Amino acid sequence: MSFGIDDLPVRDELRGKSPYGAPQLDVPVRLNTNENPYPLPEPLVERIAERVRDAARDLNRYPDRDAVELRTKLAEYLTRTGRHEVGLENVWAANGSNEVIQQLLQTFGGPGRTAIGFEPSYSMHALIARGTGTGWISGPRDEDFTIDLAAAAKAIAENRPDVVFITTPNNPTGNAVPAETVLALYEAAQAAKPSVVVVDEAYIEFSHGNSLLPLIEGRPNLVLSRTMSKAFGAAGLRLGYLAAHPAVVDAVQLVRLPYHLSAITQATALAALEHTDTLLKYVEQLKSERDRLVAELRAVGYDVTDSDANFVQFGRFADTHEAWRGILDRGVLVRDNGVPGWLRVSAGTPQENDAFLDAVRELKKEHSA
Amino acid sequence: MSFGIDDLPVRDELRGKSPYGAPQLDVPVRLNTNENPYPLPEPLVERIAERVRDAARDLNRYPDRDAVELRTKLAEYLTRTGRHEVGLENVWAANGSNEVIQQLLQTFGGPGRTAIGFEPSYSMHALIARGTGTGWISGPRDEDFTIDLAAAAKAIAENRPDVVFITTPNNPTGNAVPAETVLALYEAAQAAKPSVVVVDEAYIEFSHGNSLLPLIEGRPNLVLSRTMSKAFGAAGLRLGYLAAHPAVVDAVQLVRLPYHLSAITQATALAALEHTDTLLKYVEQLKSERDRLVAELRAVGYDVTDSDANFVQFGRFADTHEAWRGILDRGVLVRDNGVPGWLRVSAGTPQENDAFLDAVRELKKEHSA
Repeated sequence: MSFGIDDLPVRDELRGKSPYGAPQLDVPVRLNTNENPYPLPEPLVERIAERVRDAARDLNRYPDRDAVELRTKLAEYLTRTGRHEVGLENVWAANGSNEVIQQLLQTFGGPGRTAIGFEPSYSMHALIARGTGTGWISGPRDEDFTIDLAAAAKAIAENRPDVVFITTPNNPTGNAVPAETVLALYEAAQAAKPSVVVVDEAYIEFSHGNSLLPLIEGRPNLVLSRTMSKAFGAAGLRLGYLAAHPAVVDAVQLVRLPYHLSAITQATALAALEHTDTLLKYVEQLKSERDRLVAELRAVGYDVTDSDANFVQFGRFADTHEAWRGILDRGVLVRDNGVPGWLRVSAGTPQENDAFLDAVRELKKEHSA
Repeated sequence: MSFGIDDLPVRDELRGKSPYGAPQLDVPVRLNTNENPYPLPEPLVERIAERVRDAARDLNRYPDRDAVELRTKLAEYLTRTGRHEVGLENVWAANGSNEVIQQLLQTFGGPGRTAIGFEPSYSMHALIARGTGTGWISGPRDEDFTIDLAAAAKAIAENRPDVVFITTPNNPTGNAVPAETVLALYEAAQAAKPSVVVVDEAYIEFSHGNSLLPLIEGRPNLVLSRTMSKAFGAAGLRLGYLAAHPAVVDAVQLVRLPYHLSAITQATALAALEHTDTLLKYVEQLKSERDRLVAELRAVGYDVTDSDANFVQFGRFADTHEAWRGILDRGVLVRDNGVPGWLRVSAGTPQENDAFLDAVRELKKEHSA
């Protein structure tokens, strides 16, 4: 055996673990990582090159540590789309919502503290908890993947977590959490500890409903986490942000690495925000494709979880891995998130979705034959 | 009093703390953050715009999670300048060396573990230790800012830290640590625990000596931390990297946030690496300016610590803050790092350094008058 990870003095809880990440396979149609299938429009590509060229002329200097211009523009976007006015002081940005969540856990979680999520949900919440030394509590979810308020509130009351994650729309199941449920869980969390409630809205632009942004008013322990990866078609940019009471924005600055957000990232994100209208039109296309996927999958005879995201959870399969492989053999990569009996498909272009639907129709026939 | 950080359920150790960061003042000559004063050459600016334009066309996709092309090119740069051959498997990259160090502490430090540094040194080591729940031990340094081997080895033997930081050239003092000292401390650390020794070489390109890269051979617990912020004139890019045994590169992938390094950052760094030769010429200019600063400051009558970096520590002042203010009043911003009696000036352009030298000559006269 050659010298490996376990021969190093790594932390005990890392021993025997593998890095997180979807398998990256070379397949014609990849609908496995909830990427936006539409490349950025060419005028935006040119604008990015232009803004980056300007930023590169100052690249020998440290970036704006507080990302003032970017946070201002993000606040304008939130105000415009979120039915609630926020400003620079309500917004913080980092390298992907993963880093936002890491900073929140370093501030409000960490050693000797715990966080809860209602699973299955975005698995990075638990992984980042582990990475920050925060104890993880797996909260309950109903068999139909909704959050049962009584059961969830009971888990909060019993465990008294320091951080509560609510993902809406939820990943990988796709369903949204009603505002009343979020509010009731916030109250339960305040009664128990008080704790910080992080509402992960990574997919909110694809929802039939609205952002919970107005709820931050008067609730300083409520934080919304957002990203430009999906609605802005910029997964490669790694730009996540949060909206919250200004005290939260002040607090995460105690743990953020100084100059964490590069001048190049700030310039690129600013260019994308200039093209918000165009990018939101793609979101509308994806929403209607998502609705088509739900309808067609049901028509074929699959069970489908209601989706407010840019992906759809479908099943049920006696052998999930075999079903995943069967779809892959037909040239379409979907995601097995480890939810027994279910797979997840991202909404692609109409052509990609057709290819996927053809594949699952064939699969269904094969199994009914 | 309005609602603030301490009204939130933040971790106890964050209460009453302020965010890290040098004061950013609008002053004609800023020599306070060890930035490279030379803007990137225009052909490189154009190349960045070009590579970013290409990357932006795929921005809807996640970036290469493993940054294979970038790590390969960084390995080639290290091999070429470090008198030791390394490959992709020896190199890992992240958003600034701060994130590299954070990942190392999440892997090898963390709750229930400790790290030691020999202070005064780069203060982020201690701050990132705090942010990752790693206990911090302030190790000793001699009055002349060298590391006394016997005292340092004793501190390691007594405290048995899990991580040992050695900064060479040291920041903010400027002096390098001899290879023999690093080797002896590595042996002491292995005998005590074994622990991981992180050699922070952020300023190594400015040194009269060589990188300690060849020392990683046969020493799997030795890690070099590097950055493109200084020698590559790219503080705004936030690109740090490490060189070590492949097992270390595998291990940090257990804690790295997936897709932590944006496609835009990777593209920009690759463009800069294409222009290595030009950028290293600026380094030579800065080295001779640094040597001039040392000589002139001594000629004026200041004490100066030997410098292998792109900055110089000078003193001694009865009232450090007053001296800092006196230089600032003459239009030059230097850094008070909290080392009693000493200030730090970054090597700027010849004109900036002249302005600084004029200011400190005046200050000296004023105080001798």
